[in-house]
Amino acid sequence: MNAVDIIIKKRDGEELTNDEIAFFIRGYTQGDIPDYQAAAWAMAILCKGMTDVETAALTRAMAQSGEMLSLEEVVNGIKVNQAVDKHSTGGVGDKTTLIVQPIVTSCGLAVAKMSGRGLGYSGGTIDKLESIPGMRLNLTKDEFLQQYLTYHTVLSGQSADLAPADGKMYALRDVTGTVPAMPLIASSIMSKKLAVGTHAILLDVKVGCGAFMENLEDATKLAKLMVAIGKNNGRFVKAELSDMNQPLGFAVGNILEVKEAVALLRGEPAAPDLREHCIESSAILLMMGQKADTKEQARIMVEDALNSGKAFESLKQLVSLQKGDISYLDNLEKFPKAPVIRVVSAPKTGWLSEINARIIGETSVDLGAGRIKKTDSIDHRVGIIVHHKVGDRITQGEPLFTIHAHSDDSCYNAEKKLSSAVQYSDTPCERLPQFYGLIE
Amino acid sequence: MNAVDIIIKKRDGEELTNDEIAFFIRGYTQGDIPDYQAAAWAMAILCKGMTDVETAALTRAMAQSGEMLSLEEVVNGIKVNQAVDKHSTGGVGDKTTLIVQPIVTSCGLAVAKMSGRGLGYSGGTIDKLESIPGMRLNLTKDEFLQQYLTYHTVLSGQSADLAPADGKMYALRDVTGTVPAMPLIASSIMSKKLAVGTHAILLDVKVGCGAFMENLEDATKLAKLMVAIGKNNGRFVKAELSDMNQPLGFAVGNILEVKEAVALLRGEPAAPDLREHCIESSAILLMMGQKADTKEQARIMVEDALNSGKAFESLKQLVSLQKGDISYLDNLEKFPKAPVIRVVSAPKTGWLSEINARIIGETSVDLGAGRIKKTDSIDHRVGIIVHHKVGDRITQGEPLFTIHAHSDDSCYNAEKKLSSAVQYSDTPCERLPQFYGLIE
Repeated sequence: MNAVDIIIKKRDGEELTNDEIAFFIRGYTQGDIPDYQAAAWAMAILCKGMTDVETAALTRAMAQSGEMLSLEEVVNGIKVNQAVDKHSTGGVGDKTTLIVQPIVTSCGLAVAKMSGRGLGYSGGTIDKLESIPGMRLNLTKDEFLQQYLTYHTVLSGQSADLAPADGKMYALRDVTGTVPAMPLIASSIMSKKLAVGTHAILLDVKVGCGAFMENLEDATKLAKLMVAIGKNNGRFVKAELSDMNQPLGFAVGNILEVKEAVALLRGEPAAPDLREHCIESSAILLMMGQKADTKEQARIMVEDALNSGKAFESLKQLVSLQKGDISYLDNLEKFPKAPVIRVVSAPKTGWLSEINARIIGETSVDLGAGRIKKTDSIDHRVGIIVHHKVGDRITQGEPLFTIHAHSDDSCYNAEKKLSSAVQYSDTPCERLPQFYGLIE
Repeated sequence: MNAVDIIIKKRDGEELTNDEIAFFIRGYTQGDIPDYQAAAWAMAILCKGMTDVETAALTRAMAQSGEMLSLEEVVNGIKVNQAVDKHSTGGVGDKTTLIVQPIVTSCGLAVAKMSGRGLGYSGGTIDKLESIPGMRLNLTKDEFLQQYLTYHTVLSGQSADLAPADGKMYALRDVTGTVPAMPLIASSIMSKKLAVGTHAILLDVKVGCGAFMENLEDATKLAKLMVAIGKNNGRFVKAELSDMNQPLGFAVGNILEVKEAVALLRGEPAAPDLREHCIESSAILLMMGQKADTKEQARIMVEDALNSGKAFESLKQLVSLQKGDISYLDNLEKFPKAPVIRVVSAPKTGWLSEINARIIGETSVDLGAGRIKKTDSIDHRVGIIVHHKVGDRITQGEPLFTIHAHSDDSCYNAEKKLSSAVQYSDTPCERLPQFYGLIE
């Protein structure tokens, strides 16, 4: 078996065997197969595709390129507390992990989650949680396992020991024009999930101008592929397709999003789309984790977790286990504020027909809330509050955005850019759907 | 302009501009663009193709990656002695350069030729000529130009200063499964021709089991592409499509082929297919070089060059200019012989329906006449004489092959392998065509 033959086989559109894929990924991880062969292989995969079986083998090989965690607990011969996870493909204003993880853990599920940082217009959970002073998000593998096994809730940044092939492949794809290959996208996401050892995974595949997948067809393909990867590797995976044409909820920016998530968990008035997204996702997870038999039952459990304050307590437990200062959660006014806060009013009266998530995400990055390069530092204070949703009727002079900026200049530039994010209609227009379907 | 964007553009099937292609090739040659990006680009080209205009730009960029020779001679404001060249894509028993170059130079054409070495089952002119003691085939650029300008005939190995991008790309393609991309094959061949500065080029594109292009469709595509590259770069290029299902002529192996070529040039009885191939190719070159107006006139000139001994004298001049010992050409018995020479007889009576060029070429490599790796050394003495052509009637016991080997073992193995190269028919079968067409 050699690398060139495997490249040629894929280049000619043939199906690779499990052994061939494992050989290539092992060789690449160990440095026996050079970058240029992996680059040619990745481009051949992009051009010729992979079957579901190949993609599952690729994902498994990448997961097995490093350590595989075992989250299993067996009591009297029965597996208990199988870990669940919710993973979003990334979007603008997506703070659902901060809400869903506390909800479902307060309902008895066990969650062991590794999250990412933001890149480009898409935010990251780790950046958001770092807004909380003291919060540790770079747990060692032992700390991660220990906290999980003791408390059944843990959330940390990606460990470099897990799926190292993915890190190496991703860096290579980034500089060789091979990022959008569906099997490579799916295996990149899923290899980390397999390595963490989570049993049931709810994927939230975002669709729209503010998401990696801009159309429903591609998003559906990706969702189906990831569900198939799970199935082919003995995991229980479902994928919801959700809208990312406008930001999720009102807040975009790290501290602003943490505050929005906490307010929702405390039962305060919240953006209806965010609330519904979190309730629905939590309910699906409760059913996947066999805590509820029907969706109705599951949703009642979720509502109860929110209304009773149990979910909020669960977030406080998670934060305090990881040395975060929970006084900030009890008193949101403690969070530092951006030096410049300016309300932008609606320039006309009408119905909002578009609030472009991509432009808002990019403006948020310009303000300093996100990164263009991985090494950029971020300002947790800055960001944008979007006061409305597509379909809302708006009156001239009413608040449309509130910009949180580090300087007047930066605020001015953001205001200018944001004006291109909004489209108005003289006649009523429909709200955007929240979900486009569930793949299982 | 950056490498990733150019890769992505090609990956998406778009047409690259001249500037983009030049940027990529220049960057790669200088080491600014790493191997892994060139590998991804090559695979994208293989999968998505290139237009004729793109391929011409690629070829030009590769030619311009190093020195460009100028063979032009201007007398009283008129270009004289524009250089012509004949290039074969490689086959088994193809010693035509040794015959055609002397023929056409003896008829007044100027030939400046850089040739290659053999690799795999396909032989190389440089290896063959190295059979002649003393022969210098690694001329410096200055020696090459000087000899050309003085004598209008020169033949040397490829200079490393010419089209260095091609050498670098070829080495990379070899290890990344991107060898068979048509635009890359065509530009590899033609970039060296452009760099040498030849004005008129006759390409001999071989088709069949003993050639790189195994079917007529691919061979025709390659031929058309190379003709278009020439046109797009101000050169006059024609391409003949010729058969390579059986070896060309009788001899396969370096000294054996030199002897066959010399015998033909001396007017001795020769394999009719080899003689016809050389006469036809020479005639086309004479017309391209404006030494004849019609094919008939050109063929008469060629026959005359052969019959008068002028062509043979021209070979002797070339060899002697490059310090080769011409006494070997006058007395072919001086060439060393292989230690083991064995005649293999026909095992049955019938018509020959196949003499597989690929198997014969591979057997010749096994005997030591060729290389598997570029660094292998070769034995100039060994090889195979194939006494018949497809379509011949053969009687049991008649000589079929003569094997020239360095040992009994090696001879025995060759005999075994050669038995699979021949197929017999109980009824008469047609001769193979020599040419499948001329692309111009």
